[in-house]
Amino acid sequence: MKISNIDVSSYPNSEKIYMQGKLHPEVRVGMRRVHQYPTVKIEDGLRVEYPNEDITLYDTSGPYTDPEVKIDLYAGLPRTRTAWVEKRGDTEELPAMTSEYGRMRLADKSLDEIRFPRLHNPRRAKEGKRVTQMHYARKGIITPEMEYVAIRENLDNEARGIKSHITPEFVRDEIAAGRAIISANINHPEAEPMIIGRAFSVKLNTNIGNSALSSGIEEEISKAVWSCYWGGDTLMDLSTGDNIHETREWIIRNCPVPVGTVPIYQALEKVNGRVKDLTWEIFRDTLIEQAEQGVDYFTIHAGVKREHAKLLEQRLTGCVSRGGSIMTQWCVLHQQESFLYTHFDEICEILNKYDVAISLGDGMRPGSTHDANDRAQFLELEVLGELTKRAWEHEVQVIIEGPGHVPMHKIAENMTKQLECCHEAPFYTLGPLTTDIAPAYDHITSAIGAAIISNLGTAMICYVTPKEHLSLPTLEDVREGVITYKIAAHAADLAKGHPGANVRDDALSKARFDFRWKDQFNLSLDPARAKEFYLAGRRDAPDADDKFCTMCGPNFCAMRISQNITEECNK
Amino acid sequence: MKISNIDVSSYPNSEKIYMQGKLHPEVRVGMRRVHQYPTVKIEDGLRVEYPNEDITLYDTSGPYTDPEVKIDLYAGLPRTRTAWVEKRGDTEELPAMTSEYGRMRLADKSLDEIRFPRLHNPRRAKEGKRVTQMHYARKGIITPEMEYVAIRENLDNEARGIKSHITPEFVRDEIAAGRAIISANINHPEAEPMIIGRAFSVKLNTNIGNSALSSGIEEEISKAVWSCYWGGDTLMDLSTGDNIHETREWIIRNCPVPVGTVPIYQALEKVNGRVKDLTWEIFRDTLIEQAEQGVDYFTIHAGVKREHAKLLEQRLTGCVSRGGSIMTQWCVLHQQESFLYTHFDEICEILNKYDVAISLGDGMRPGSTHDANDRAQFLELEVLGELTKRAWEHEVQVIIEGPGHVPMHKIAENMTKQLECCHEAPFYTLGPLTTDIAPAYDHITSAIGAAIISNLGTAMICYVTPKEHLSLPTLEDVREGVITYKIAAHAADLAKGHPGANVRDDALSKARFDFRWKDQFNLSLDPARAKEFYLAGRRDAPDADDKFCTMCGPNFCAMRISQNITEECNK
Repeated sequence: MKISNIDVSSYPNSEKIYMQGKLHPEVRVGMRRVHQYPTVKIEDGLRVEYPNEDITLYDTSGPYTDPEVKIDLYAGLPRTRTAWVEKRGDTEELPAMTSEYGRMRLADKSLDEIRFPRLHNPRRAKEGKRVTQMHYARKGIITPEMEYVAIRENLDNEARGIKSHITPEFVRDEIAAGRAIISANINHPEAEPMIIGRAFSVKLNTNIGNSALSSGIEEEISKAVWSCYWGGDTLMDLSTGDNIHETREWIIRNCPVPVGTVPIYQALEKVNGRVKDLTWEIFRDTLIEQAEQGVDYFTIHAGVKREHAKLLEQRLTGCVSRGGSIMTQWCVLHQQESFLYTHFDEICEILNKYDVAISLGDGMRPGSTHDANDRAQFLELEVLGELTKRAWEHEVQVIIEGPGHVPMHKIAENMTKQLECCHEAPFYTLGPLTTDIAPAYDHITSAIGAAIISNLGTAMICYVTPKEHLSLPTLEDVREGVITYKIAAHAADLAKGHPGANVRDDALSKARFDFRWKDQFNLSLDPARAKEFYLAGRRDAPDADDKFCTMCGPNFCAMRISQNITEECNK
Repeated sequence: MKISNIDVSSYPNSEKIYMQGKLHPEVRVGMRRVHQYPTVKIEDGLRVEYPNEDITLYDTSGPYTDPEVKIDLYAGLPRTRTAWVEKRGDTEELPAMTSEYGRMRLADKSLDEIRFPRLHNPRRAKEGKRVTQMHYARKGIITPEMEYVAIRENLDNEARGIKSHITPEFVRDEIAAGRAIISANINHPEAEPMIIGRAFSVKLNTNIGNSALSSGIEEEISKAVWSCYWGGDTLMDLSTGDNIHETREWIIRNCPVPVGTVPIYQALEKVNGRVKDLTWEIFRDTLIEQAEQGVDYFTIHAGVKREHAKLLEQRLTGCVSRGGSIMTQWCVLHQQESFLYTHFDEICEILNKYDVAISLGDGMRPGSTHDANDRAQFLELEVLGELTKRAWEHEVQVIIEGPGHVPMHKIAENMTKQLECCHEAPFYTLGPLTTDIAPAYDHITSAIGAAIISNLGTAMICYVTPKEHLSLPTLEDVREGVITYKIAAHAADLAKGHPGANVRDDALSKARFDFRWKDQFNLSLDPARAKEFYLAGRRDAPDADDKFCTMCGPNFCAMRISQNITEECNK
């Protein structure tokens, strides 16, 4: 289907398949299966075709690429997980939102025009219950979500005879230990479960959001779906403009991947941008508002403390995290410790009622290579480690946000220190950017750092688009950013030996060697662009499957010569 | 000036400066000096300006960005180094080219129309002389070229009080030991000396060239100058179409950086693409032809041996090097050892008469991550090590070409083994590409590998454009490829602690923190694109120097808040 003229309905020569759970037969994991053309050889003057197997790929596009599912943005995606949540019997449907702000927005008739038309009542844990995946895991339970991600990570490894350490039991144990999370709010049953942890494939997050200057609701939804289509594993909605509440509802109802937010942004809007007026009560209500809408994880900058303000003065680029700068300023203005820190246990007790994961924000991430690995940054990391333990006491799932701008020789220390301080909670980094001199190319400066740190154990990387530092990304920038980060993530999967990660590389390489151009395109991260570039170089017969490419021309193709050599050797 | 509508005459808010040699006062090293705007602060209600210092940058654009030099493509660039070469007294001007093919082309009147109009007689070492930089270095001589590169590497480190290990003496010693080269044919006096070695800043090579299907002479020259403008340190001319000889003359006469070629390509054209008809005599004449035109380094695949043919069968993607596949096929067809290997000493004795460096080609580089680090690849590397020693006996400067497609966890072994096998001769790699699944984005898959391997000690990286595997690059692709590789090279310089490498990063970061947008653009690798992206997001007042960017909008700018915090703390 098309959303704002964007076609996200299918991948070339691919079909949507589902793999069923064994422990939980209701689990159906969507994947993409790419069909290939046969390898054609001429043997004794005859044309012989050798079939090539289908290749199964991890699929983040959700129901949008399933022709069997009728997409209706005004109804939202199928609420598959509702039955799983209900079956556990530890939650209840509320008669209405419990957030004050949420009720106020609902009561405002002037918003009816932009409101998502089919609102659902929120669901919450019953009194005294915790409903997090960590809670179940610690009890030894393998939830449908856990089996789902185990199947999803493995693709068709079993059928291929590829050994894998990833079983439902392993997933459960990693979650119980805090080394991995499944970010799945009970109020976002439209999302397909996915796992973030260093024993699994590296994930990537995309950011969308409008600032005061631009963008609108429809565009935000199309961006969300677009980023999933290209391979985004989670989505952070960083909107700061008007109607955040309503925009978010549209996005969550139509988003097949977990959605994250930074609640302090909205809290600040509620006090008209006056940092001094921020209070715990307003923040608390914002958490509830968003948790009941279905936000799957919150970035909370609870590691920023009073003493950070002074440390900033020693920096070249101060504080470059919005949340971090807000909270530092709040501490300075009030001469008090941050309410995010002092109310941290209460925050956790809200989150474990909905299974919202906490992404401990790095308010002190370096904004230049000059400031990398300094005291401000590492002090915060130590505080995050302390908060991780406290969150785990409440059985709240935790990931830790990381930098930022870090030159290559200082990357390893970030990972080592994070594992050490934060008790192996998953690391989630923004890049890092390995140099500061390339605005307009920071998707690349950061993909280098992202690949390196993922290989060292970072579980999720937050994408950076070419517009970073300069402007808001367009749809084309989102695509460029996602593909660039898929490259970084996949390069790390290969290097870490993620089970079956090399299947796609090997299939594409074989297609390349066979001059099966269409298969080469279809197996690539961006089939449309690969094809476009190929055709751009061909003056004649643009659709022909020639035995050479336009790089070297017909007489100089190494791979063609190479095939001749092997034929010669075998004579 | 404009070449084919490309403006390469200046960099924004920059001036061309020259630093003079001390040992050799005739040495004048061109650099780019970027002027900055002042930092503006409001103090006690008054606007106060604090000046920001000029930033000096490494400049590969040659005379094209010097308004004092009149550029005339039909005359070629100033032949600055001729005087240095003549002064040494060990060369002689020949009455004409000594290559048979070169004479034949010159005699062909039908080529007059496309011939470079002001041909110079070639120069060659006098009988019994060797004229390589390695020869001089081993004699303890510091040539003007050596002082030139020492100054060039340091920029204004001395004025800034930045300590540096790079002195003219150090340059000489590295060249004597074979750990670095200055690729500077005596017949290419237009080129500005530069150094390739792991104790120096990481360099990048760009490839240009027409294949049989496209391109022309004028376009090739504009590509060459274009790639220098964006930061290419050397240029390989890989043309395979008609009139290679004449095209090359135009390029060399107008190219301010060293030019490399793969002579076997032209040799193959001379026998109409029939590998079997290749002979040592044809190849030998091609070496002389190109050496007398001024090619600075030759890629020669002398490490490909007969036994390689069999090893290819075990690969997924066979042989993907054009030169490698040609020579393997030649060995198979003739059932003989490669003439490049058997005539290697003669090759060296030709090269040291002109100071052409040898780039030992990696004919067996893996063409897929599957084939990385296999026996075919490492067998060749061992042979290259043996050939390195032999080349050094003839005082020929050597670099070693490396892969290719290598997953991240196998990169380090490439570097370790290269240092070990090849006695620390500089490594020059193509990427490596860290995954195979992203055609149309292979500048990025490979920049990741290039940054990592450069950090480990690779001295020069060969750029890859977005069109790799698919088509020939356009000018925009060349720009994208060069900038991407500048990022990889500079990220490695930062990580290796190259003296003064961080000056540009820190200046740009400070400009960013000060909201000096224009300085941020001017100091970036691609000022035009950074500015374009910035302006795209601004609906009003596109030229204003606002205290926020379009990413977060005026109310959410972390850096602005951060500045407020520091002001608050200092009250």
